[in-house]
Amino acid sequence: MARLSGFPEYTPRERIVEQAVLDHLRTTFELHGFASVETRAVEPLDVLLRKGEIDKEVYAVSRLHGEEAAELALHFDLTVPFARYVVENANTLDFPFRRYQVQKVWRGERPQQGRYREFTQADIDVVGRDVLSPHADVDVAQVMTEALGGLMDLVGSADAHATLQVSNRKVLEGFYLGLGLTDSTAVMQVVDKLDKVTPEKIRVMLGEIGVDDVSATKVLALAEIVTTDTSFVQQVEALGVEHELLAEGLAELAHVVGSIVAPDRVTVTADLRIARGLDYYTGTVFETRLSGFEQLGSVCSGGRYEKLAADNRSTYPGVGISLGVSRLLAALLGDGVTASRSVPSAVLVAVADDNERPAAQALAGVLRGRGISTEVAPSAAKFGKQLRHAERRGIPFVWFPGTPDTVKDIRSGDQVEADPATWTPPSEDLRPQVVIAPPEEKTP
Amino acid sequence: MARLSGFPEYTPRERIVEQAVLDHLRTTFELHGFASVETRAVEPLDVLLRKGEIDKEVYAVSRLHGEEAAELALHFDLTVPFARYVVENANTLDFPFRRYQVQKVWRGERPQQGRYREFTQADIDVVGRDVLSPHADVDVAQVMTEALGGLMDLVGSADAHATLQVSNRKVLEGFYLGLGLTDSTAVMQVVDKLDKVTPEKIRVMLGEIGVDDVSATKVLALAEIVTTDTSFVQQVEALGVEHELLAEGLAELAHVVGSIVAPDRVTVTADLRIARGLDYYTGTVFETRLSGFEQLGSVCSGGRYEKLAADNRSTYPGVGISLGVSRLLAALLGDGVTASRSVPSAVLVAVADDNERPAAQALAGVLRGRGISTEVAPSAAKFGKQLRHAERRGIPFVWFPGTPDTVKDIRSGDQVEADPATWTPPSEDLRPQVVIAPPEEKTP
Repeated sequence: MARLSGFPEYTPRERIVEQAVLDHLRTTFELHGFASVETRAVEPLDVLLRKGEIDKEVYAVSRLHGEEAAELALHFDLTVPFARYVVENANTLDFPFRRYQVQKVWRGERPQQGRYREFTQADIDVVGRDVLSPHADVDVAQVMTEALGGLMDLVGSADAHATLQVSNRKVLEGFYLGLGLTDSTAVMQVVDKLDKVTPEKIRVMLGEIGVDDVSATKVLALAEIVTTDTSFVQQVEALGVEHELLAEGLAELAHVVGSIVAPDRVTVTADLRIARGLDYYTGTVFETRLSGFEQLGSVCSGGRYEKLAADNRSTYPGVGISLGVSRLLAALLGDGVTASRSVPSAVLVAVADDNERPAAQALAGVLRGRGISTEVAPSAAKFGKQLRHAERRGIPFVWFPGTPDTVKDIRSGDQVEADPATWTPPSEDLRPQVVIAPPEEKTP
Repeated sequence: MARLSGFPEYTPRERIVEQAVLDHLRTTFELHGFASVETRAVEPLDVLLRKGEIDKEVYAVSRLHGEEAAELALHFDLTVPFARYVVENANTLDFPFRRYQVQKVWRGERPQQGRYREFTQADIDVVGRDVLSPHADVDVAQVMTEALGGLMDLVGSADAHATLQVSNRKVLEGFYLGLGLTDSTAVMQVVDKLDKVTPEKIRVMLGEIGVDDVSATKVLALAEIVTTDTSFVQQVEALGVEHELLAEGLAELAHVVGSIVAPDRVTVTADLRIARGLDYYTGTVFETRLSGFEQLGSVCSGGRYEKLAADNRSTYPGVGISLGVSRLLAALLGDGVTASRSVPSAVLVAVADDNERPAAQALAGVLRGRGISTEVAPSAAKFGKQLRHAERRGIPFVWFPGTPDTVKDIRSGDQVEADPATWTPPSEDLRPQVVIAPPEEKTP
C-alpha cells in the first residue's frame, strides 16, 4: 500500500520524541498561565478564502452522502480559527486572553523536505479587547524563548542554539516613509529576498521599483543591523532618517528586546532584516533560526496584529508566535534524535508458566501503582525468549518472579533480588529518554 | 457567525476537563506499556469504503486547486487506519504490538445529543502476527477497567460506577448453531434490539426469521444471563444446548471474566445480551455502561477480530477497545463537571507600577522554576483591579511584591508574608482541579 506523500506518520519510537517535544511545550506554556484551546478541524470555506490565503491550497471537505449547509475546508493555520473562536466566545472569555493551541493543520502544497500537507503547529497568542498592552509582545516572546531553550536541552546536541530575531514593522515602514518611499510593502518584499540574493542584486531590484541609489544604500544598511541589545537604536539613528512611525517602532522594539530574559541556548536579537513582509503584522515581528538547521528557515514566527478579529462592538488586537513542530521534528529525527526505547514499559515481568500469570499480573499491578510502566510477557516462554522480547523494544528491566523475585538489567546483565513494593528503577530509566545517538539495537 | 452543528468546541474551562480525562487515559495506557501511535487524518477513499462502512457517511477531502493522485477522505474511526499502519510498518514493529491512539475522527451523521460529526476516540489494541494469545483479551480489558475506574474517581460523583460487559461471539453463534439456527447474524441482530423492545416482541421477530418457539425461548434465556463471575458457564450449560463452538466460547469468556481484576467503581460482568452483531468481531466482545448515563449507551466498546489486517505473508489478529471520549465528556459536562479555574495559573503577580514589571517577571520566573504556574498582571493597576483579574479566572493566589512580599488567598482573604524561593501552594491548588459543583463565580 503506497504511503501518501506529504502525510508523514511516525514510528512508535519517533512518536515518543514527538510526545516529549509536545509535553515540553505544554508544560512551558502552562507554567506561564496560557490556557489550552482546540478548535474544530474545519472552517467554512468562505472564511478561509476571505483571509486572502488562497495561495495556501486549501483542502475542501464535503459529505459523500448528502448536502452541507456550508461548504467546509480543513484549516491551514491556527490563527484564522482562533480569531473566529475569540469572536464567538467574546462574551465568556476573560481579556486579555492568553491561549496556546497545538493541533494539526493541512495545506495542499507540494510536499518537500520538512514541508508537509498535514503537520502540527504550536501557537501561543495573547488577545485583548480593544486594547492590548505592549507587554504582551514581551510575554509571548519570553514564553517562546523559554520553550526553545528547553527544546535545545531536550533534543539538541551540546552546541544546539536558537536565535529569536525580533523586528518591528513600524521601524521598517517608518524608515522607508522617512526616505520618501511610500510603497513600503514593495520595498519589504524586495528586502525579504536578502536571504537568497546578494545585496547588489537587491539594489538593482530596489531601483526597478523606483528607489534611488542613496535611499537603496540606506535601506540595505538598515537591513544589516543586528544587535543583541538595544544598541540598534543608535545604529538606526546614525543613518539619519527621521519619521514619527520610525521613532514609535524603535521604542517598541527596544522595549521588547530589552525586556526578554533569554535562557541558556537562546539568543535574542534585534534583526532589522526581518520583515515578514507578506503578512498582516502591524508592529513587532518574530522569526527564529536554529544553528545547524539553517536550511529550515524560520521554525517559529509571528508578531503583533492590531486587528486579529472584530465584531460589531470591538476589535481584538493580538500578538502571537507559531512553532512549526513537524518541521522541527523532521530536522531533529533526520539528525539522529530518537527515543531510548519504543514502548513506555520500564519493566517486563517474565512468565515461565501460564499458571503463574495471575501472580505476574498482580506483581505488575504493584509496580504500576508505584508509577512504573510495566508489561507482562505475552506468552509463557523460556527466559531467553523473554529477554529478547525486552531487548527488541529496549525495555531495560526483566522481572523474574520467584523465591525471591529477581530483576535483571538487560544492558549490564546484572541480576539482583528485588521487592515490587520497594524496587525503583534509576530515574533515567523510568520513562523513555530522548537521545541523540541511538543505542545499538541488539537482537541476539 | 453561526456555529457549526456537530463540531463542538470547548471553553477553556471545559478544555481543562478534557485534558484531565486525556491525561488520565494516557497515563493508564502507558503504565501498562502501550505505545502511542497517531495516524494521518485522511485515508484513500476506496480504503474506507472497502470496509463496508458507507453507512458512516464519510467526509471526502479534495484540494481546491490541483488534482490528487488518490481520492481522500477523513477517517471515521481509528481501527481502519491502524490496520493500514500495521501492514505498512509490519517490518519494523515488534509483535505482539500494543498501541493506544487518541485522535479526532469525523462522521457525517445527523448531529444529536452526544453524537458529533467531529469527535475524539481513545483506542487501545493488541495486534499479533499470525497468532495472538488469548491473554491479550484480558490485557485490553484490564487496562480499560483501570482507565474507567480512574475516570470515575476523577470526574464522577460519589456513586459513579462503570460496568464492563463482556460476551463472546462464539458463545452466541455456537448456541444458535446448537439450536440448528445457521443464520446467527440474523438472530443476533434481532437479539441486539432487546434494549429497545420487549422480549415478547423479540420472540415475534425471531419467529419472523424462522426461529421456532422452543428455540426462541432458549435464545431469550441465553440473553438474560448476566453474572459477575464465571457462574454463567453453568447457567448456559443448564439450557441444554451443545456445540463445539459454544464450548470454545464459554472457555474463552470464562478466562476473560475470571482473569480481570476490576478496580473500585467498576464491575465486570459476563453479559450474554452483548453481541455487537453488526460488527466484524470473532470472539470476545465488550461494551460499557455508566450508571447515571444509561442514555449514552455503550461508551466503550470493542472485541477480538481474527483478522485485523493481512498482507502477502501474514494475517494480523487483534483485540481492542475504543472509548468515546467526546460522548463521555458531553455527558459529564452536561452533568455539571467543570474545572476549578479557567487558566493553569496558580498565582497572579500584581504590578503596581510598570517600573516594577521586570522585578515581577523575575519573581514569576522563580515560581515557575519551582513548577508553579504563574502569570504577571497584564497592566499596572490598583490592587482591587488585579484581584478581580484573578477572581474572574479563578486564580487562587495574588502575589504582592514588596518588603516583604505577601501572597493573598483570594478565597479566604488571608494574606501572609512569602518568599518565592520557598512558598508552595497547597497541592490541590497547584493545578486546576476537576470539580462537580462549579464554585460560584464572584465578580464583585
